[in-house]
Amino acid sequence: MGKAVKDQLGRVIERETAPQPAVILVRPQLGENIGAACRGMLNFGLTELRLVAPRDGWPNPAADAMAAGAVELIENAKLFETVDEAVADLSFVLAATARRRELEIPVVGTETIGAEMRAKIEQGVGVLFGPEKAGLTNADVVFADKILTYPVNPAFQSLNLAQAVNVFAFIWAQSQGVTVPDIFDDVRSEVAPREELTRLFDHLEDELDKAGFFFPAAKKHLMQQNIRAPLTRAQMSEQEVRTFRGIIKALAKGRGKARGG
Amino acid sequence: MGKAVKDQLGRVIERETAPQPAVILVRPQLGENIGAACRGMLNFGLTELRLVAPRDGWPNPAADAMAAGAVELIENAKLFETVDEAVADLSFVLAATARRRELEIPVVGTETIGAEMRAKIEQGVGVLFGPEKAGLTNADVVFADKILTYPVNPAFQSLNLAQAVNVFAFIWAQSQGVTVPDIFDDVRSEVAPREELTRLFDHLEDELDKAGFFFPAAKKHLMQQNIRAPLTRAQMSEQEVRTFRGIIKALAKGRGKARGG
Repeated sequence: MGKAVKDQLGRVIERETAPQPAVILVRPQLGENIGAACRGMLNFGLTELRLVAPRDGWPNPAADAMAAGAVELIENAKLFETVDEAVADLSFVLAATARRRELEIPVVGTETIGAEMRAKIEQGVGVLFGPEKAGLTNADVVFADKILTYPVNPAFQSLNLAQAVNVFAFIWAQSQGVTVPDIFDDVRSEVAPREELTRLFDHLEDELDKAGFFFPAAKKHLMQQNIRAPLTRAQMSEQEVRTFRGIIKALAKGRGKARGG
Repeated sequence: MGKAVKDQLGRVIERETAPQPAVILVRPQLGENIGAACRGMLNFGLTELRLVAPRDGWPNPAADAMAAGAVELIENAKLFETVDEAVADLSFVLAATARRRELEIPVVGTETIGAEMRAKIEQGVGVLFGPEKAGLTNADVVFADKILTYPVNPAFQSLNLAQAVNVFAFIWAQSQGVTVPDIFDDVRSEVAPREELTRLFDHLEDELDKAGFFFPAAKKHLMQQNIRAPLTRAQMSEQEVRTFRGIIKALAKGRGKARGG
């Protein structure tokens, strides 16, 4: 995209060249839904689609067919094998889900999230949507800084994937004119890209594995969540991530020696 | 509908019995879109569907199939021959359209329309959506008090009918003033008392001291800040603090041995 377009008043704008949140479809099942999601995105000016392990492979003709005029999004979609990789360059990640989670991740509604995303957009923002049937797993959601919930009907919560994306795109578009509340204007350093945090987790969990920390093995997953959730919430700067890498190195250093001698 | 439902906190609410805007599909073409619109409506608590002269007649099996769990809306849909009749009992009518009109009808955006509809809801509110291909004619739009426009991408304005209805339903639900984050707030455990965090810092910094981490000594204060700030921001629960205490123990364990032997 990125070409100048005209808005309803005839003004030339470059809406699509501005940074915008990435829509990340995690293990989507139906190509039709991917295509419909693209339409809903482009209707409200979003163009950056990322796919994590789409069930039916990629490219997918069913997606092309449904995307209609938004086929350019399909062609430019980025393909990833894991959520981990898909969020690597982002600093603020949302997980769109209606299910309650036993996760220590703050939940945010739709009223303020547009403004919050705009305040953080230069550092890389993305939103995770789960597969049609099962939705996001907790292992997916722990990559998120916040859980985004829609004001859904409690008796009929399950949104179609494309409609969930459509509503997200609308929220983004609507927030364009909205002034960013002061509360998001903090003096914090830039948040480290997510891949640095992932490397920190890998480093820490690798050392913990060596130290026999993850016992019993059945609980490893839960223990990982207890490690990752607070460090993700902390929105660490690059300097802080470096400090924590240094901590792990310093603490783990002697142990190798102990084993060696 | 109209039966009591439970929200996430288990409170019995009667969301669906309260008056709500009627969604009026004018000469809709595809049954699939009618069904998908029903899903999008019910997801956000809307249940009143009106149909004006649907192209393929009514009832329509294609609509039933797409409505999935929202088939009750299909069954209760009211059928009309003209827009005139469909809006007869309403006092405030919107026409959802992205096209510019040479009509002396005020245009309203999405930011304030939810509140405006709620203010007028007791008197009867409805919104017109046009057929898939052609959209609403001027003859349809003149029945509206206001034209409702979405903040669409000027280069790709044409929303799918079901998605347009979906966004409208979302706008309605969001304007309800439901403070979603509050509802979910109890998911987060209580934040650990500060003294537990202090003990965690003491423990960590003591081990780091032993490991020779704080070097040069003049920088110790700054390094402490880089450790404490993110862990404080993380607002850790007691369980998470325990996990981090365990991490420090696990990583530091071998080092003592190394020194001893």
